[in-house]
Amino acid sequence: MKNFGRALLITIFAIIAVSLAFGQGDPAHNPVTETHSEGSEAGVHPEGVAVPVLFALIVVLVVAKLGGDLLERIHQPAVLGELLFGVVIGNLALIGFDGLEFLKYNVSFEVLAEIGVIILLFEVGLETNIKEMMSVGASSFVVATFGVIAPFFLGWGVSAFFLPNDPIYVHIFIGATQCATSVGITARVLKDINKVKSAEGKIILGAAVIDDVMGLVVLSVVTGLIAATSTGNGEGISSITILWVVAKAVGFIAGAILIGNLLVPRVMKFGLRVRATGVLLSIALTVCFLLAFLAEKIGLAAIVGAFAAGLLMDDVYYKGYVDRGEHGLGELIHPIAIFLVPIFFVRMGLLVDLKTFGDPSILGFALVLTLAAIVGKQACSLGVWQKGASRLAVGLGMIPRGEVGLIFAKIGATITYAGAAVVSPSTYSAVVIMVMITTLVTPPLLKVSLLRGEGSLKKGQTA
Amino acid sequence: MKNFGRALLITIFAIIAVSLAFGQGDPAHNPVTETHSEGSEAGVHPEGVAVPVLFALIVVLVVAKLGGDLLERIHQPAVLGELLFGVVIGNLALIGFDGLEFLKYNVSFEVLAEIGVIILLFEVGLETNIKEMMSVGASSFVVATFGVIAPFFLGWGVSAFFLPNDPIYVHIFIGATQCATSVGITARVLKDINKVKSAEGKIILGAAVIDDVMGLVVLSVVTGLIAATSTGNGEGISSITILWVVAKAVGFIAGAILIGNLLVPRVMKFGLRVRATGVLLSIALTVCFLLAFLAEKIGLAAIVGAFAAGLLMDDVYYKGYVDRGEHGLGELIHPIAIFLVPIFFVRMGLLVDLKTFGDPSILGFALVLTLAAIVGKQACSLGVWQKGASRLAVGLGMIPRGEVGLIFAKIGATITYAGAAVVSPSTYSAVVIMVMITTLVTPPLLKVSLLRGEGSLKKGQTA
Repeated sequence: MKNFGRALLITIFAIIAVSLAFGQGDPAHNPVTETHSEGSEAGVHPEGVAVPVLFALIVVLVVAKLGGDLLERIHQPAVLGELLFGVVIGNLALIGFDGLEFLKYNVSFEVLAEIGVIILLFEVGLETNIKEMMSVGASSFVVATFGVIAPFFLGWGVSAFFLPNDPIYVHIFIGATQCATSVGITARVLKDINKVKSAEGKIILGAAVIDDVMGLVVLSVVTGLIAATSTGNGEGISSITILWVVAKAVGFIAGAILIGNLLVPRVMKFGLRVRATGVLLSIALTVCFLLAFLAEKIGLAAIVGAFAAGLLMDDVYYKGYVDRGEHGLGELIHPIAIFLVPIFFVRMGLLVDLKTFGDPSILGFALVLTLAAIVGKQACSLGVWQKGASRLAVGLGMIPRGEVGLIFAKIGATITYAGAAVVSPSTYSAVVIMVMITTLVTPPLLKVSLLRGEGSLKKGQTA
Repeated sequence: MKNFGRALLITIFAIIAVSLAFGQGDPAHNPVTETHSEGSEAGVHPEGVAVPVLFALIVVLVVAKLGGDLLERIHQPAVLGELLFGVVIGNLALIGFDGLEFLKYNVSFEVLAEIGVIILLFEVGLETNIKEMMSVGASSFVVATFGVIAPFFLGWGVSAFFLPNDPIYVHIFIGATQCATSVGITARVLKDINKVKSAEGKIILGAAVIDDVMGLVVLSVVTGLIAATSTGNGEGISSITILWVVAKAVGFIAGAILIGNLLVPRVMKFGLRVRATGVLLSIALTVCFLLAFLAEKIGLAAIVGAFAAGLLMDDVYYKGYVDRGEHGLGELIHPIAIFLVPIFFVRMGLLVDLKTFGDPSILGFALVLTLAAIVGKQACSLGVWQKGASRLAVGLGMIPRGEVGLIFAKIGATITYAGAAVVSPSTYSAVVIMVMITTLVTPPLLKVSLLRGEGSLKKGQTA
């Protein structure tokens, strides 16, 4: 532990020293300046576009492993260490060091983080299959439904209490920000403690997919409602829009599974005849990225597509590759996950702005909203009737709100009603705090509850 | 083969159909528009920054494997297939389809390609070590030296012949563009046919590192010379600059090897005590990216740093990880390479603009320049005195010019002498053609010569 502390200090100093020496720390750095600067004074190799990203990768790789190690030592999930160390390096500006601020604005770094979480959900999808998911389908559906309804009305109530003079649409919007589950955190914890295939794990993952479709519906309804009220017409159009949104989303998921189930085995078989290295991994990544891409185009999250792609890949389909001596898909994907997944979580941590916690006038609203967000999702437990499955774990696993809540709030900030933005800047800050806290509290709570749930299962308790 | 052709056609149509349906094909797409568009009409998940990159990755993964397969079937290196298929998808605009033009301008895609070639050189570096490289060091040095001198004067001569009315500085600059070897292509061919550890392979790789330092020197001398002549002073300053450039570059390589040799085993040992998954891979990637980053900051190529990092990693250092049941470093890096390396080569192909070949007034100059570039590097064979090593293969392996030649030419385009740019637009086009052809001809020539060289070795011929 003493040696570890020393290593940690050395590392942090080293990172600061390198960024001071090489000046990656232009806080005004934005995507626009990320273009070629060929012919600069740097020499034969003018500074490539990859240079700031290389620096970011070094920071993430070191920080993720040290953070993960430290938290593992105090029996907490590694992902919490990645998040917390992300928070630390994202807020060094508070102590006057802004050499790492560029990490927040570098687009390519963000893209790598996105690919990281896509790979994570693909890997999680690989561990289970469509049949197993279907077996908990009804449960997942009820979990998702309660997990949308309860937080929605709780959020509405909290908003009505704290902002009594605001129009009803503000409360509806705050309610909507409380609905959507961000499954990345939960998926990572499930994976780390090897619980993807547990009843709770499958229920949560299934519910997260359904939840994403419901989120789309809620958004369509809420924005349609406001549009209809403020213009006095267009309600008919918005109903059709809503139906179309739902049809596209459900159609995508059903289509991906049905068509994928037919095509994937054929493509895998065709791949056996392709004379190139890494065909199995290339096919798997192609299917993963294709479904992630299509999901985004439909309006769903890319990770929903990636998860579906993982479900489609079954051991039997690529048996031919393993038989001829190649590695299985899980083994091939894992090194890519080791490389890219921590980028997503460290980046999530570094986007946490500790300054937002400094405003006492927002803090009260924010904390009650957070409480509502956590309590509201416990309604999910009503959907769990599987013997031995921990209801508490499912409720806790649905807590993280992540980027979807933020995006709802941002949309609210762009819609005006009676001359004012539906979501004001201070309300937005409250939502940001809610998202941050729900993200950070989930990993430890979920880990404890799942390991306890396992204990109760052994005792034959039906929870 | 019939089935293959059908699959190929289906794939190309599918790519075109998807890009037409989802409109990734905004030809005006540039890095500036690659920012967030939160709150767009796309729904709960406004189109993320990763969406165009996901599409690009799908295209690359498919095209790379099909291209590789097709070329393997006609006994050509897979990398040539990736390059040629890249050329095809990069020039679809010629037949009126510009849906893939965005691939050329997406910064994040470029960053992924850069990381790809860094991973490739790291992987190549892993296959050999410092001791083995030192054993051919003298040979590499002579190869690099002749490979800079001969093409420089040949290029000068060709320029003087085709542009008789231009000032001498133009000829010097054209000569300079002929010097630098771009080792990515050669490294990939060596890796694909398992020849990294051959005498020729080691000589070429060592020469490429030294060549990169010499490229820096040539650039400093040439630009210093022009600056001194046009202003009439500053020559003293530029000598010191040159010395400093050389000292930094040589110091970096020596320092990386000496300090790395001391530190890497210690860090690896420390890593054994870190309680997190993927520690070995994370340490390896950190060292790789750190040396790549520092190399760029010094003015060398990132791949020189990555190669040095690969040399530093020796099996014995990570024996502890393998002993406790983890995969070796080569196995861990390979899936990442399968994913990222083809991005670099497909992207290189798609940057080839076939329209540049359409101007007959440039084409003559360009072709003679290309011939000079190829012939000039054959002087490298004078540095090969190892028994059984193919002199021809070494000369051929040094042919590709890649981006360094282009960057030289671009710098020349920004320097004016007597009121005109040292490198005119048409001269620049000629250099571009030279770079494209040297890139495309190397893989097949190198493969044949290395496999022939092997044959001659068996007959005991000393080449």
